[in-house]
Amino acid sequence: MGPFVTNAWYVAGWGTEVASGPLARTICGDPIVFFRGESGSLAALADRCVHRRYPLSLGLVKGDTIECGYHGFTYDCSGMCVSVPGQSKFPSTARVKSYPVVEQGPWIWVWIGDPDKASSTEVPKHPWLYDVGWRWIGNHASINCRSGLLVDNLMDLSHESYLHAGYIGTPEVAQTPIDSSIDDKAGIVRVNRHMHNVECPPFYSKSSGISGRIDRWQDIEYRPPCLYVLHSRIAPTGVLPNSDGSDPDAIHMKILYGVTPETENSTWNFYAVARDFSLSDDWVSEFLTEMQDAVVKQDVDALNVLEKVIASESGQVQELSIKIDTGGLVARNVLKKMRER
Amino acid sequence: MGPFVTNAWYVAGWGTEVASGPLARTICGDPIVFFRGESGSLAALADRCVHRRYPLSLGLVKGDTIECGYHGFTYDCSGMCVSVPGQSKFPSTARVKSYPVVEQGPWIWVWIGDPDKASSTEVPKHPWLYDVGWRWIGNHASINCRSGLLVDNLMDLSHESYLHAGYIGTPEVAQTPIDSSIDDKAGIVRVNRHMHNVECPPFYSKSSGISGRIDRWQDIEYRPPCLYVLHSRIAPTGVLPNSDGSDPDAIHMKILYGVTPETENSTWNFYAVARDFSLSDDWVSEFLTEMQDAVVKQDVDALNVLEKVIASESGQVQELSIKIDTGGLVARNVLKKMRER
Amino acid sequence: MGPFVTNAWYVAGWGTEVASGPLARTICGDPIVFFRGESGSLAALADRCVHRRYPLSLGLVKGDTIECGYHGFTYDCSGMCVSVPGQSKFPSTARVKSYPVVEQGPWIWVWIGDPDKASSTEVPKHPWLYDVGWRWIGNHASINCRSGLLVDNLMDLSHESYLHAGYIGTPEVAQTPIDSSIDDKAGIVRVNRHMHNVECPPFYSKSSGISGRIDRWQDIEYRPPCLYVLHSRIAPTGVLPNSDGSDPDAIHMKILYGVTPETENSTWNFYAVARDFSLSDDWVSEFLTEMQDAVVKQDVDALNVLEKVIASESGQVQELSIKIDTGGLVARNVLKKMRER
Repeated sequence: MGPFVTNAWYVAGWGTEVASGPLARTICGDPIVFFRGESGSLAALADRCVHRRYPLSLGLVKGDTIECGYHGFTYDCSGMCVSVPGQSKFPSTARVKSYPVVEQGPWIWVWIGDPDKASSTEVPKHPWLYDVGWRWIGNHASINCRSGLLVDNLMDLSHESYLHAGYIGTPEVAQTPIDSSIDDKAGIVRVNRHMHNVECPPFYSKSSGISGRIDRWQDIEYRPPCLYVLHSRIAPTGVLPNSDGSDPDAIHMKILYGVTPETENSTWNFYAVARDFSLSDDWVSEFLTEMQDAVVKQDVDALNVLEKVIASESGQVQELSIKIDTGGLVARNVLKKMRER
Repeated sequence: MGPFVTNAWYVAGWGTEVASGPLARTICGDPIVFFRGESGSLAALADRCVHRRYPLSLGLVKGDTIECGYHGFTYDCSGMCVSVPGQSKFPSTARVKSYPVVEQGPWIWVWIGDPDKASSTEVPKHPWLYDVGWRWIGNHASINCRSGLLVDNLMDLSHESYLHAGYIGTPEVAQTPIDSSIDDKAGIVRVNRHMHNVECPPFYSKSSGISGRIDRWQDIEYRPPCLYVLHSRIAPTGVLPNSDGSDPDAIHMKILYGVTPETENSTWNFYAVARDFSLSDDWVSEFLTEMQDAVVKQDVDALNVLEKVIASESGQVQELSIKIDTGGLVARNVLKKMRER
Repeated sequence: MGPFVTNAWYVAGWGTEVASGPLARTICGDPIVFFRGESGSLAALADRCVHRRYPLSLGLVKGDTIECGYHGFTYDCSGMCVSVPGQSKFPSTARVKSYPVVEQGPWIWVWIGDPDKASSTEVPKHPWLYDVGWRWIGNHASINCRSGLLVDNLMDLSHESYLHAGYIGTPEVAQTPIDSSIDDKAGIVRVNRHMHNVECPPFYSKSSGISGRIDRWQDIEYRPPCLYVLHSRIAPTGVLPNSDGSDPDAIHMKILYGVTPETENSTWNFYAVARDFSLSDDWVSEFLTEMQDAVVKQDVDALNVLEKVIASESGQVQELSIKIDTGGLVARNVLKKMRER
């Protein structure tokens, strides 16, 4: 069992990150250079020149190729070396690994594993970042923790009441029971928490203008290993969706996380918050950005600490799990099976 | 033989350090949270929540309990979990280790080892920090060295002549022979150096107003593993204590060190300087604070360097011991026996 | 096979570095203190007091001795302990290792290996730093890389075209073929690149005033393990040296590097640039200093990155060598044989 789930798509970055030059990013332990050629094509190559192992990401994009910044070996988007200094012939073994890469909305996805298996496996959809009717904000953070600790964190939102009090947490989150389930066919772990007649935290009240008591639904869909979506529904107490699925008196947010292992002990957290209201209000985007960045920072700080704790403990870590952990335990189990495959 | 002397009291901190919230401090490798409940009670618990190992020291004190800052597990002063989120029943195994803890004067002492053996073993007395007739200043420092290097440092004060020249050191310290002895019954290592007709360093001359040549006595009492007291007597040359023990023409200082291992390679140094003169002169306290902090910093800098040297040398470290090392070698031997017990 | 070439002279520093007190410098893994006594004599001793291992470099030079800053043990230039605190007799084993040391021009050279073999082996000459007719500038840098990576860098100047473009590199450097050879008797590896009718980079054009196309000769002489000299000749296109060896219409620079391992994964780079023109022009010295420091910084940054890459790769590092690497591969082979001896 390796440390990472392979043969899977991972969020690797934002399209905007390759606008002005190559991007070095380690994904699942692999150092990768992402770059956009002048024709607009996107490439993901092993970030090591075949000559002397210098990172290609420190070089220059020229046309649809990348030139090593040390001695000038040049590679096309498929990883084939097309030029070396001082001689015109060189072995065809002069090539670096290339990774399947896809852009979908603002996110760059990379395939880690056997490239031949990539084509038949779809990149998970996340339409709220590219469909009309939605507006999103997003950012990313690096966490010095194993990816499992971030998954634990996201699957058990009872921590909102403590770690995120005053932002997205109220006491009712921790107090309200959850339902959790696994859809083996779709490969989705679900955790649902429907709170009735509860306090509305600032994240939702200020952004939407809703005042007074609310019904607050948290419906988690986690598609291991990478994509986590929290479907958040906020409505005045007692207001339900219509029987046709329409839900005009509620507001909806989709809180997305791309959980991408960097190394065994560090993780990229690509996050976005999409909303279906106040689409033209810039101040709402600014407010949500500020709030979400602060909430993520609280998680990052906590998980950085927790990784040090876990890493310092030899042998099996002693934990005590309770009902709120059901979703997290299911996710752990799915990830374990995926790593064993 | 473990790395630490156990079944012993260690200085863990100052009472003032738990005034505004929990204090995280690692003692002998154990992460411990110290907190004062609203009733004034003091508790020392293992600093790891039973749930997901999050440090309790990052949580909040509520009444006489502490609430985990991640998911809200709550513990009383005995370490018993008294509340978890979302459910009213939970296993009685939900408890964390508690440590015997005692306050004596300004210092918090913690017992490392078998709690049942704590009650019968007295916390070492250090009346100069809480009896009338004395006034003290104090502080603490963290040193990136094994505790043995600090003990070596304190037992051989010849280093004052070199490392602390201009503060507490004069050439005569290193030149004057020592007597060292061990009181096995009381568990005390003693090193005595009585200097006659010597120069008075600024630490003593400025604080006391004594000018001219002095007799300077350094009587070390080290009670392994933690408490070190230097009884310092400064008198005009030739002036001896009276036969009844009174000593009105001399001044006395007690320089105390709590030597507390943090990890195998780092050490807490809790230090205090008590005096029996100029009790109402604030400027003397300020002067001694400034001087003692500077002297300790000189030691910290030297020991940080020395730890790196020792750690970099594989195998047995080659040393050459001479007469001035007698006290230090006795102390090393006592500590070795205590670790083996 | 040890990690370092021993029984060899290494550049250890500049004479100016011991002007105001002892200098601590690790050479080939050995911590060494260099100091100049009041009589002007230069000494190199193991930087560890025999007493408690404190670095002597933190002590004081007194006369022609050095006094330990912790407890005052004092050593003469041969490493013999001549004084300890508090006693007049002490064992003759109280001595530290001394290293053969030589000053030649501005450089201090130290002998690493068997001291008895030092006398019969000459320090490599580098007259451009001490003979009339030349003026030099120089400095040093610490690189967090194994010394072999710096040797690779210097032996393959094709990297000038990429890493140092705009300073000393033009496209023609990488495009021009090299000749490489080894002079086993003299112990010198040579790499020659003679460029005809090429662009003159700013390093040479601004300092010399030469404008237009040039002939540019790069003649490397590497005398393993430490001394690297690049003989650089710049002349107007078509101008050759006279048959008697005089070369009045060309300018000459000698770019010297002392490649000195600090540890297995860090290296001292002592560099100098000597010229035979504009000897009285301070601005030329200032310009060359600025340029050379910038060029070295580019190398240091690149090599710091490369060391992390190499260190992170387990097993044999996969490289692909081409014609430009011939000189570097010869140098690697010579160094390997020297380490095996």
